[in-house]
Amino acid sequence: MKEKTSQVITPDQLLEHWQGHRRLTRRVIETFPENEFFTYSIGGMRPFADMVLELLGIAEPGLREIVTGQTTQLNEYFDHGNSKAKLLEAWDSATEQLNMLWAQMEEMDFQKQIVSFGQFPGTVQSALFYFMDNEIHHRGQAYVYLRSLGIEPPMFYDRSYI
Amino acid sequence: MKEKTSQVITPDQLLEHWQGHRRLTRRVIETFPENEFFTYSIGGMRPFADMVLELLGIAEPGLREIVTGQTTQLNEYFDHGNSKAKLLEAWDSATEQLNMLWAQMEEMDFQKQIVSFGQFPGTVQSALFYFMDNEIHHRGQAYVYLRSLGIEPPMFYDRSYI
Repeated sequence: MKEKTSQVITPDQLLEHWQGHRRLTRRVIETFPENEFFTYSIGGMRPFADMVLELLGIAEPGLREIVTGQTTQLNEYFDHGNSKAKLLEAWDSATEQLNMLWAQMEEMDFQKQIVSFGQFPGTVQSALFYFMDNEIHHRGQAYVYLRSLGIEPPMFYDRSYI
Repeated sequence: MKEKTSQVITPDQLLEHWQGHRRLTRRVIETFPENEFFTYSIGGMRPFADMVLELLGIAEPGLREIVTGQTTQLNEYFDHGNSKAKLLEAWDSATEQLNMLWAQMEEMDFQKQIVSFGQFPGTVQSALFYFMDNEIHHRGQAYVYLRSLGIEPPMFYDRSYI
């Protein structure tokens, strides 16, 4: 297939796509009752808070690793004292950090071979799509948790600013 | 941000990304017991079969609309007689059709403004990512259904050929 004149998706569009998904995930976190966020589970799966800790452990550290080239370890925990506000604070901090890190992506070759978190081989683009797809996957699970709690989740297609 | 020399993701990579997700979704369909595939539900949500009908209604018709420019209506049902084999057959047919349609995307401007299914405005790329994200979202929900049935779903990161 010959080279296109226009990008399939530009770097700026990819960041906006990511942050749009992150805005929706933030809204899903907000929708959870405080207690159920940390405790509610179906079929032996993790509570959504634990999935969010995974997402926080991936997004900013993963992008920083891509930007700096410094291998980082996957860390899916920090001391949050079962406070949703603390996780939302971490979420918002990551949102800003992703924007700042992305500003350093001007010269990035998205096709470059990398090893994410020192263990997952791929390219810059495949890693970034994995980060996003993984978030969509777990957030979809949170929708089932919410529905089974009798709570209506945010609309999937609403990626607007809060 | 200035223009990159390399694509973030090429058209061929995007198709492979999509088909990789579709291979995983196919595996999830296969993992469901026949009866539960059509009937099992949590929190008043649709059985996974109904979500798969939605995915089938979107992928091939949505891409055909993009390729031909002919407006199509969203149709999320066909007579499947509660047969998983029939849905898998439709899935495999769509897999081939997507490949054939994609071969006509050589001159496609992924940034072109379109209105999917005559009602959802966006661009070619935003429509395609929506199709994929929506599939990941619902498949994530199917993982919860399977776990709550005591069944281990396929690994999320395994997009290999069957």
